[in-house]
Amino acid sequence: MKKIEHIGIAVKDIEQSNQLFATLFGEAHYKVEEVEREGVKTSFFQCGPNKIELLQATNPESPIAKFIAKSGEGMHHIAFAVDDIEAEIERLTQEGFTLIHKSPKLGADDKLIAFLHPKSTNGVLIELCQDIKG
Amino acid sequence: MKKIEHIGIAVKDIEQSNQLFATLFGEAHYKVEEVEREGVKTSFFQCGPNKIELLQATNPESPIAKFIAKSGEGMHHIAFAVDDIEAEIERLTQEGFTLIHKSPKLGADDKLIAFLHPKSTNGVLIELCQDIKG
Repeated sequence: MKKIEHIGIAVKDIEQSNQLFATLFGEAHYKVEEVEREGVKTSFFQCGPNKIELLQATNPESPIAKFIAKSGEGMHHIAFAVDDIEAEIERLTQEGFTLIHKSPKLGADDKLIAFLHPKSTNGVLIELCQDIKG
Repeated sequence: MKKIEHIGIAVKDIEQSNQLFATLFGEAHYKVEEVEREGVKTSFFQCGPNKIELLQATNPESPIAKFIAKSGEGMHHIAFAVDDIEAEIERLTQEGFTLIHKSPKLGADDKLIAFLHPKSTNGVLIELCQDIKG
């Protein structure tokens, strides 16, 4: 784990939240991206070496819609940057963590990602992410 | 906001969670600290430029005890590093954010801190923190 790559925050209205976080950081988001297969619209803010990712559901079956229905808006996951996601998946599986994804999948912001199940990590939804080379 | 200084995670049993996060990061916590007036015991893990702070309540009136009773274990707050916490409190108040602390107070890990109320920040409990100089 090299650093916190980003914190994911579930929001109901990404346009409104983009304004709120732009005011908070004194700087607008640098990117928006829709990940259709996940049913989310995302925006990214830079904060020094880290990012904040806002996530709004684009359909009621989206994991983000379900999260907000259960817990309301707020922190959704922590993503840690790793150099070799396949090696980390292997290591953490051996250590007894429950991986939601047993092999890396394509995520937003040009990353390979895999999530750990929060039941094995003190209720924290953790994402591993690796930059896609080339 | 210079970077994510740390993420605070509410846990029930800090000894058990210290082991869990040490396995996750491949490295033990570097510090434990009890903040008696807050009713918390904390431990800190380094992750590149960022930290993870585990928080366990030391009495049932502690904000962490109440958080866990309501929401279970998990992400509790995001702390952002700032150079001048008084100036940030002033700026964010002017921008319409609700500050829980209108002046900085002493926090764990040698910081001056102030919290923003999650009602004004999309359900996210945000901490500002500044290193104590000298």
